[in-house]
Amino acid sequence: MRDKVLIYSRFPKALMLRIGERYELMDAAGKPPREIFSAGQLADIRAMITAGGTPLGAGIMDLMPKLGAIVCYGTGYDGVDLAAAAKRNIMVGHSPGANAASVADIAVTLLLAATRRLLVADNYVRSGDWAAAKPSPMMRPQAGMRGRKIGVYGMGEIGRKIAARVASFETEVGYFSRSRHDVPYQYLPSLEALAEWCSVLVIAVRAGPDTHHIVNADILRRLGKDGYVVNISRGSVIDQAALVAALADQTIAGAGLDVYAKEPHAPDVLTAFANVVLTPHVGGHTLESHVAMQDCVMANLAAFFAGRPLAHPVS
Amino acid sequence: MRDKVLIYSRFPKALMLRIGERYELMDAAGKPPREIFSAGQLADIRAMITAGGTPLGAGIMDLMPKLGAIVCYGTGYDGVDLAAAAKRNIMVGHSPGANAASVADIAVTLLLAATRRLLVADNYVRSGDWAAAKPSPMMRPQAGMRGRKIGVYGMGEIGRKIAARVASFETEVGYFSRSRHDVPYQYLPSLEALAEWCSVLVIAVRAGPDTHHIVNADILRRLGKDGYVVNISRGSVIDQAALVAALADQTIAGAGLDVYAKEPHAPDVLTAFANVVLTPHVGGHTLESHVAMQDCVMANLAAFFAGRPLAHPVS
Repeated sequence: MRDKVLIYSRFPKALMLRIGERYELMDAAGKPPREIFSAGQLADIRAMITAGGTPLGAGIMDLMPKLGAIVCYGTGYDGVDLAAAAKRNIMVGHSPGANAASVADIAVTLLLAATRRLLVADNYVRSGDWAAAKPSPMMRPQAGMRGRKIGVYGMGEIGRKIAARVASFETEVGYFSRSRHDVPYQYLPSLEALAEWCSVLVIAVRAGPDTHHIVNADILRRLGKDGYVVNISRGSVIDQAALVAALADQTIAGAGLDVYAKEPHAPDVLTAFANVVLTPHVGGHTLESHVAMQDCVMANLAAFFAGRPLAHPVS
Repeated sequence: MRDKVLIYSRFPKALMLRIGERYELMDAAGKPPREIFSAGQLADIRAMITAGGTPLGAGIMDLMPKLGAIVCYGTGYDGVDLAAAAKRNIMVGHSPGANAASVADIAVTLLLAATRRLLVADNYVRSGDWAAAKPSPMMRPQAGMRGRKIGVYGMGEIGRKIAARVASFETEVGYFSRSRHDVPYQYLPSLEALAEWCSVLVIAVRAGPDTHHIVNADILRRLGKDGYVVNISRGSVIDQAALVAALADQTIAGAGLDVYAKEPHAPDVLTAFANVVLTPHVGGHTLESHVAMQDCVMANLAAFFAGRPLAHPVS
């Protein structure tokens, strides 16, 4: 008999096919598990797969008395109550670095698209306004990349890959993180200093209680009216209401966002702006990063069911 | 009295303000000069400013018997009949390299946006389809940049800047141009070989009679069903009808275009595709590249009216 694994978050089925060949997947499809499965069905479950950002507290864990492993699909694990898991000796694993290149790519895509107003430009062609030579204030020339100051907040694997990419555009790259790294970029001593210094702030910091709403109205004001913010980390790192206000009153020039406060929802006030570029949390959504993340999930589950430590534990 | 300069192409007035401070600009606004000015008004004109891609033959030149200098705003000069100009000893100048970084940026922007389906993704968020978990075949994961083979056609200043940028995304970069260059990228011996080898073909070659429609149905077939074409050079380099056909029957996966066969027009069949990203010839359209191109125009005009050779002649 195959081992049972609870699928806690909502994942497209295609992503779970390979894992389903080896395990019996019990798919809660993003709903509370007790709405889908009986207490008896949950009683057997020893391992679960979750998206790291999905809230997962002691209450859910306690529905599964035999639960021994929480496996996050992706790098993040900010939704998991690590203390509650530790208390019950539940191991927590993730997919470190598996999607780093893919996430860094989307960060640069959002950065370029927002600063060069790609969506406005594409619409200017498709609407016929270009052919009609219709004047458009949104089409005025903007600053390009050369000489731009790009601030990267967080210098983990994703932050380093973002920095390497944007540096190739003849930019100046600066960063802030808790500690200095051996990287060829200017270190700024605080997030405040980074926001003052840069014209594009790219958020690549790990989400957690210490970074909750750390990009607030004050940071956005420091970024300034020519500034852009790009977020590929977690929605929780930005105070989303402050961001909406800063966009509405032109405290900043624009934004590129892959993550939001409450997913899968981008608020209507945000989707009404022409100077933002919005993607539906697809940073890690490439063929090769899904394969790499699945590799990590399979390795974590195999190790757990063999009674060994997880292959990719959250440290 | 200020020297008179004909503005032959349609430029936004804001771009000509600085030049207008020094010269008397006679703006034909993209219309045939004789529709706007009398023969007598044109008889005085010794210099003109044009967009290099705008057709400019002997007939137009001969409206101005005293014409001595044609100054292209930008790098290209493919619209200018150089033989006709030489016959009358009219000097031709341009803005070499002034917009190279800006054009290279838009090439990478189009490449990333097309391959990651950025417009589809943004629309998926804004339409509410993401919140509704509406299945979308267009949102299936695509190949990312890491390990992609990017083919750059043309290794001039713009081609080199494109190659340097895309290499930072952990890609393999290959190129074809008339001659091999001292660059750290793989040289392919022909355009056919480059198209067979790469998954994204970026066109950065100088336009002219020898490259007219050189990217044709055969090249697109070699690029293949996972392939993308990005064009920031001139519309004339691609057989646009063949491109539309290749997109319609999925001979290739998509395209990112800044230039078109007949500007400012992108045909309706092209604007109907969801797998293309279209910009209105804005490659050089950044604040800093406009300043640099204006510098070249001013230097060319100043040299000409002082009786010296042009500062930035077409060689």
